[in-house]
Amino acid sequence: MKRGVLREPLDQELKDLQILPELTRWRDEFFEPFMQITLAHMVMMVKTGNLTLEIGREVLNALRCGLEQGPSWLPMDPGLEDLFFNIEEGMRRRFSQRAGDHMQTARSRNDLYATAARLVVRKKIIELGSALCRLRKGLLSKAREYGQVIMPGYTHLQQAQTITFGHYLLGCAEALDRDSQRLIASYQRVNLCPLGAGALAGTSFQIDRALTARLLGFEGLVENSVDAIAARDCLLEPLAALSIMANNLSRMGNDLYLLASAEFGMVSLPDTLVITSSMMPQKRNPVTLEYLKAKCSRVEAAYDCCWSILKSAPFGQSSEVTGEVWVVASEGLEQARDVLDLGRLTIDGLQANRDRMLAAAEASRIATTDLAEWIVQEFDVPFRQAHELVAVAVGLCEDEGIRSGLPSEQFLNRGAELVLGHALDLPPGIELRFSPRAVLEKKASLGSPSSAEISRMLKHLEARLEQDCKTVERWAESLAEAGNVLDQQVDELLQTWR
Amino acid sequence: MKRGVLREPLDQELKDLQILPELTRWRDEFFEPFMQITLAHMVMMVKTGNLTLEIGREVLNALRCGLEQGPSWLPMDPGLEDLFFNIEEGMRRRFSQRAGDHMQTARSRNDLYATAARLVVRKKIIELGSALCRLRKGLLSKAREYGQVIMPGYTHLQQAQTITFGHYLLGCAEALDRDSQRLIASYQRVNLCPLGAGALAGTSFQIDRALTARLLGFEGLVENSVDAIAARDCLLEPLAALSIMANNLSRMGNDLYLLASAEFGMVSLPDTLVITSSMMPQKRNPVTLEYLKAKCSRVEAAYDCCWSILKSAPFGQSSEVTGEVWVVASEGLEQARDVLDLGRLTIDGLQANRDRMLAAAEASRIATTDLAEWIVQEFDVPFRQAHELVAVAVGLCEDEGIRSGLPSEQFLNRGAELVLGHALDLPPGIELRFSPRAVLEKKASLGSPSSAEISRMLKHLEARLEQDCKTVERWAESLAEAGNVLDQQVDELLQTWR
Amino acid sequence: MKRGVLREPLDQELKDLQILPELTRWRDEFFEPFMQITLAHMVMMVKTGNLTLEIGREVLNALRCGLEQGPSWLPMDPGLEDLFFNIEEGMRRRFSQRAGDHMQTARSRNDLYATAARLVVRKKIIELGSALCRLRKGLLSKAREYGQVIMPGYTHLQQAQTITFGHYLLGCAEALDRDSQRLIASYQRVNLCPLGAGALAGTSFQIDRALTARLLGFEGLVENSVDAIAARDCLLEPLAALSIMANNLSRMGNDLYLLASAEFGMVSLPDTLVITSSMMPQKRNPVTLEYLKAKCSRVEAAYDCCWSILKSAPFGQSSEVTGEVWVVASEGLEQARDVLDLGRLTIDGLQANRDRMLAAAEASRIATTDLAEWIVQEFDVPFRQAHELVAVAVGLCEDEGIRSGLPSEQFLNRGAELVLGHALDLPPGIELRFSPRAVLEKKASLGSPSSAEISRMLKHLEARLEQDCKTVERWAESLAEAGNVLDQQVDELLQTWR
Amino acid sequence: MKRGVLREPLDQELKDLQILPELTRWRDEFFEPFMQITLAHMVMMVKTGNLTLEIGREVLNALRCGLEQGPSWLPMDPGLEDLFFNIEEGMRRRFSQRAGDHMQTARSRNDLYATAARLVVRKKIIELGSALCRLRKGLLSKAREYGQVIMPGYTHLQQAQTITFGHYLLGCAEALDRDSQRLIASYQRVNLCPLGAGALAGTSFQIDRALTARLLGFEGLVENSVDAIAARDCLLEPLAALSIMANNLSRMGNDLYLLASAEFGMVSLPDTLVITSSMMPQKRNPVTLEYLKAKCSRVEAAYDCCWSILKSAPFGQSSEVTGEVWVVASEGLEQARDVLDLGRLTIDGLQANRDRMLAAAEASRIATTDLAEWIVQEFDVPFRQAHELVAVAVGLCEDEGIRSGLPSEQFLNRGAELVLGHALDLPPGIELRFSPRAVLEKKASLGSPSSAEISRMLKHLEARLEQDCKTVERWAESLAEAGNVLDQQVDELLQTWR
Repeated sequence: MKRGVLREPLDQELKDLQILPELTRWRDEFFEPFMQITLAHMVMMVKTGNLTLEIGREVLNALRCGLEQGPSWLPMDPGLEDLFFNIEEGMRRRFSQRAGDHMQTARSRNDLYATAARLVVRKKIIELGSALCRLRKGLLSKAREYGQVIMPGYTHLQQAQTITFGHYLLGCAEALDRDSQRLIASYQRVNLCPLGAGALAGTSFQIDRALTARLLGFEGLVENSVDAIAARDCLLEPLAALSIMANNLSRMGNDLYLLASAEFGMVSLPDTLVITSSMMPQKRNPVTLEYLKAKCSRVEAAYDCCWSILKSAPFGQSSEVTGEVWVVASEGLEQARDVLDLGRLTIDGLQANRDRMLAAAEASRIATTDLAEWIVQEFDVPFRQAHELVAVAVGLCEDEGIRSGLPSEQFLNRGAELVLGHALDLPPGIELRFSPRAVLEKKASLGSPSSAEISRMLKHLEARLEQDCKTVERWAESLAEAGNVLDQQVDELLQTWR
Repeated sequence: MKRGVLREPLDQELKDLQILPELTRWRDEFFEPFMQITLAHMVMMVKTGNLTLEIGREVLNALRCGLEQGPSWLPMDPGLEDLFFNIEEGMRRRFSQRAGDHMQTARSRNDLYATAARLVVRKKIIELGSALCRLRKGLLSKAREYGQVIMPGYTHLQQAQTITFGHYLLGCAEALDRDSQRLIASYQRVNLCPLGAGALAGTSFQIDRALTARLLGFEGLVENSVDAIAARDCLLEPLAALSIMANNLSRMGNDLYLLASAEFGMVSLPDTLVITSSMMPQKRNPVTLEYLKAKCSRVEAAYDCCWSILKSAPFGQSSEVTGEVWVVASEGLEQARDVLDLGRLTIDGLQANRDRMLAAAEASRIATTDLAEWIVQEFDVPFRQAHELVAVAVGLCEDEGIRSGLPSEQFLNRGAELVLGHALDLPPGIELRFSPRAVLEKKASLGSPSSAEISRMLKHLEARLEQDCKTVERWAESLAEAGNVLDQQVDELLQTWR
Repeated sequence: MKRGVLREPLDQELKDLQILPELTRWRDEFFEPFMQITLAHMVMMVKTGNLTLEIGREVLNALRCGLEQGPSWLPMDPGLEDLFFNIEEGMRRRFSQRAGDHMQTARSRNDLYATAARLVVRKKIIELGSALCRLRKGLLSKAREYGQVIMPGYTHLQQAQTITFGHYLLGCAEALDRDSQRLIASYQRVNLCPLGAGALAGTSFQIDRALTARLLGFEGLVENSVDAIAARDCLLEPLAALSIMANNLSRMGNDLYLLASAEFGMVSLPDTLVITSSMMPQKRNPVTLEYLKAKCSRVEAAYDCCWSILKSAPFGQSSEVTGEVWVVASEGLEQARDVLDLGRLTIDGLQANRDRMLAAAEASRIATTDLAEWIVQEFDVPFRQAHELVAVAVGLCEDEGIRSGLPSEQFLNRGAELVLGHALDLPPGIELRFSPRAVLEKKASLGSPSSAEISRMLKHLEARLEQDCKTVERWAESLAEAGNVLDQQVDELLQTWR
Repeated sequence: MKRGVLREPLDQELKDLQILPELTRWRDEFFEPFMQITLAHMVMMVKTGNLTLEIGREVLNALRCGLEQGPSWLPMDPGLEDLFFNIEEGMRRRFSQRAGDHMQTARSRNDLYATAARLVVRKKIIELGSALCRLRKGLLSKAREYGQVIMPGYTHLQQAQTITFGHYLLGCAEALDRDSQRLIASYQRVNLCPLGAGALAGTSFQIDRALTARLLGFEGLVENSVDAIAARDCLLEPLAALSIMANNLSRMGNDLYLLASAEFGMVSLPDTLVITSSMMPQKRNPVTLEYLKAKCSRVEAAYDCCWSILKSAPFGQSSEVTGEVWVVASEGLEQARDVLDLGRLTIDGLQANRDRMLAAAEASRIATTDLAEWIVQEFDVPFRQAHELVAVAVGLCEDEGIRSGLPSEQFLNRGAELVLGHALDLPPGIELRFSPRAVLEKKASLGSPSSAEISRMLKHLEARLEQDCKTVERWAESLAEAGNVLDQQVDELLQTWR
């Protein structure tokens, strides 16, 4: 096989440095997609009369043999530049000279790689969507288990107000629900077919792009032939969606990491998910959360790196667009998968320490807001003054060395005198009215951690999850179906022959 | 006004360094949103019976006065920590002590900032959506103008095949169509209301979150109170959509920058858009393309920086979430706006040099693919052999010092002999059959640069643009309408009073 | 004033969108550097005989007047493209037509901007170097204060071994010492003079680049005229050094943020550095640490954004190189300054809670490593077996519900029997030998938290700090001196005239 | 082997997902460093009397056997958590139970990994430094070859002034000289030894950290035990230096990519470095430049990703610090190596098209600046007026349809009349005085493209390169020497035994 107008072979160092590693990688990722795309292309070429039935059958037969034998039969010669030329040459030598010679009619490597990238990405989106569903399921299951487990909620990492651990987890699940929407939305723009764009200008053959798209399970076309081979927002968009998801998961992972410290002591992970120390006999290290946090950065870095690679690539075809950006994008998708799996493993193994959580809530002053709201409701004091008198009362407690809990009525009344100019008719022991449980049950707003709201949100998010799972399953089925149709069509063409 | 339990004033250096600059910025961006949100909140508080009509009127009246007078009346005291406390104190001093004291009932700065951020972002998405429509309109208009202007298409920045300049621009427009879809999709997840989440745990007041959401023009709620104050994917998602768009525009800008060089000489910009040199008398520098390229990076950098800031912020409230990330996001949205405006200015001013474009196409060898396809079609030669014989013929031309144009039939036949073992029955002067125009008109595939396809794609993309413009307009109308409803409700409550 | 070959004025929208905002920014940052550079250039031009003494005096006199009156006299006309053309035209109109006409002889905006950027950056490096010295001083002062304050050291955020808070702070100080080295190293590559490179190809005038460099306080030249106007590693290198520093500070800030939580309760900040809540009366929010963490990301983002902007800029002059990248770099340097100031404020205000720190150390099992090492030393048990028998003993304690402290000799002996096959001759009450203080004093390795080592490291780091402070001061003096020499030379030339 | 206090085995999915892949990677990268470090540690432990000679010999003997047999003997059991535990267990089973049991005395995985990372990074810096020297050598060689080859220099990608291709390449070489300085500077901060810091708090054994550091070829210590295990600026700094270098190379690569287009036609690459097309017979695609550009982004992305991973890692030990950040940093160093090799291959293969370069210079108007300067020098016209009159003359030429070359004296005199009010006494045919060669030889400034300056700069940069090459060689020799000393010491200890 010749390299067009080129008369000298590729530089040996270039082959070692760049071509061979890339080739090896491409074989793993693209052998099957290339074969599948070529099958569809050849079926179309026969059906549209661009190739004779006889030649078509020979090519299809060779392709099917090549596909069935897997990539291992394929010699990898970096002198042939890339995977496609290796396949073409391999077909020619092993199966049929004619098959190799006709494969690339009305096609270029440019639309081939662009199509293959979309085939792989959409498959990965399905896997990721499914992994995200599993993680959300685990999260909702824990949210249900710990729905009533009281803990302090934090703002600025300071104890703020009473919530439940389940309520916190539901918050995370709601964020992941939006992440799922974004990933799902990206699928429709990924699942468009660039095949038929040729090198960048289409072809003079009377091809039927809609047919190949259908045979490959695409829902539409990237029409313009320049856009079809140039654009890589089909990589950027899912990576961006996953990078946003990774941001949410990194924040959750960071929180759980703190809660797992001895000082917080609120969650723990089973022995199966922790690592010990080679020097310190007592250690139990929650490494899955560390991997999770780090890998979230890697997802974002992949997005950012793809962006940077593409920034100055011509809006056309180049090795940046076909080669390097793919390597980075593909690794990013893999990291996202790891993030989801590590997240699920961690969430599924997570155990809350109910006692420590409750004790922290009880020992704190986090009911002061509820107390202030109650003063507003009971005594018609404007909120800002209620807020201030409680703050003053807390300050007075601190002065007396009382470091936790709500101020008693004496302190409150001294606060009231200072702020309002008069005491309030406070019942004794009012701090007892603000137990964490009581506080939660007085929550009246939609989305708050009252048991009714938690229960409602759980059902709501479970229903949404169900829906997303079905969407992902439908995609998978639809691809399987397209695969079957393609197989049938190949069969039919071959059978009329045999 | 007191700072809760805190007894000492803020450190002077901290005020100078951080608080005052932030305060000044917040005033510009958040004064109006804060007032509008408070109006809606107060209307709801009265309607739900949480505040008496009398107090409600006093607050609403004060708020309306404050809003009508604009932010200039507001003293900016960094000792009060932030904009909200300044507004509250300002209301108290200037308009009504009672108004200030009641404003924050059943609310926190946390849900207030979260809501304000969404108000501002959705407004900016509308402006950006509209700017993107204008840019796309300009692009399609140029695509129409230059639809038949022949030029070489490039891959690997080497002359590849014949296209038209309009075809290239349509490719860019198709990419921007997807960018528009992403921006539009982000709006639905931005336009959700966090108000009523309180500090992070809702409130014991019987508030009606759906009502405030409606009065503020939101299409739904961020339900969970932790998620509502913690999540900032409402910033990340539009920035990601815009960052992907910036990637497409950076690539297009880069291409046009090359085309504007003397060596390509294919496009030029009017004097109004170029800059000269202080030293070199002859210079005409296309700086709008340089600004465009640079600002595209700034959009992506804003996304990446927001991601990094949020990465380790607790999934709750913090100054990272409310403060710093907002500054960066807001600047990112501004840069995106500049990108769109610079892009539009440049596109609208762009002039193609038809002669240079055509000359480049004619002097090149870019019809060899078409020639090879023709050989396949005419002589039943497999494509790979046709490709190879043309390549051989081109090489032979090079050997003879013929540096441009298609090989003549002699060279082709020598190629055929070498590759096929026999000459082809080629007509004389066949290179004349492959004029750029002839080549284009033989293009038979959907999305290719034939005049029929260019015409079809133009109409298709114009129709899609029309649709997107309407979507953006509908959003704007819907917000205006909500504003009117809120005004009416305030009026009604105030009128029953006057 | 005309715009070279351009005949139409700049587009109004372009002026509003880009030119005017840039102009305003440039005036603030570059007016003085531009004037100073021009003074030096003109002194050189006279001394080298390229300008007559008479013209030189007129220009120098006009420049000095313009400089003394500050930038406020300067009208800002965006139609003149940029700051330099505005200054030139302003000089011409307000002070001397001739001055304006001669200012740009043997010079271009390209070398002017490149030189001004270095003038500003080196000044900022001096300020940053000085701010870093102040932060390190505060850190070492706290390290001295808390040198003996025992706390648990953490790995994987789990209690690991006994250290002191001072030891931890010394670790941070040692990292900042390296950060200082990097910043200092960057100065020598920033403080090189590109002036005289002209537009990119030098000039036919017999200029003396060494003289202007000396008059402007530079230590050398960027020689090659293309490199001189193209390169911007003079921005990237200090930003990279600061970004690495920001990474170290972000990690320290993150740690202190945790220690400031109620659950850790180990450090606190004074009222002057915390913020309260508008809703929750009890809140004390350590926001300086949050700003610090977020701004660290902004420093890195500035580096990354500059990199991205420059990535595809020609290695020459463009608006990316002169304009946009400067804006981003300049903001990055500002953010770095904020990081240092916020860091210093926070460190200076930091108070350690000695009791909580000690209590945490005592209640933990962090002396098990020391116990295992002691068993190796006393009983000739290989370390791995000592480690294992202690681990087994800890496990047995857990089984009995003993949740903290070292295992007693019974447990250890049961561990020894299981691991070694026999008990050890352990004295009773051996857990008492491993008080935190005792553990620290047994530390024998260089760099460990023994009091001797802490004391030694303190002195070492203080001495290094002293040295760096002097370096930064020397720079400042050297620049002041160069300024004086320039002033003198201008005076001399002017006086011979008056 | 037991996992300390942990009683359950690691989760199977976690092992598959994270532990095993990491283990495999670690084996390739860290097996040798781990063994070498352990040899040095054990020599020290014996010499300091912490281990008996007898035990020491057994361990050293086992280690040496293990090292000599390479990593292939080592079973990889993910249940043992990581590479170190596998080595320890492997030593125990295959070579000596006692060796395994004593290896980790007075040491932790934390200081082991930190030390190994520095061993590997410093080796890679040496390789990278050497690769950078080779690239610079190639660049200087081409600069010498093309020192007098005239071409247009560009600003804003517009033809600006006359330079030579060698002058441009020298500009790039000067930038790479600074890159080399930065890489060299990083080495001194990388080549510091953290060994002996233990888990984070040193050890109670009387170890000699200076001795192990010396045996491992380090030039100093990271003293503080927390800093020693926590800090990773030893990864960030070389990556930052390389990222800045990548920025310079990306810009150069981008320029050459344009010059290689048919339209510029100024450089070409040999067949051995270009790729063809599967569809277009005429294509010659300069892919090494595309890979180069893309991989430059990957270097920067690695820096950015490491930064992000570390941002929120505690300043201590965690899997982020030891594990994930290493993977990313290591890949970044590899990409930097590829960048350097691709850069060198490309530069070495680069051929300038002298004719096209000269023709472009001659057909342009790039001598107008030189003309204006000459007018200043000959006629005492202020530069701004000379500049303007030339600009006017150029405009007049354009009006007459004269699109290239300098304006003749008629046009210049019409310009002079319009600008100065009078004609100049211009000799006829003055445009002939400004041939590109004449223009260059009139350049009088240091660093300009006159042949004298080019020659001087070449020598200067060659001398500097020579120096850097020697520095890198000295490092390599110094490490080899340290390795020999360690071997000798091991030999001595073993020989006294045999």
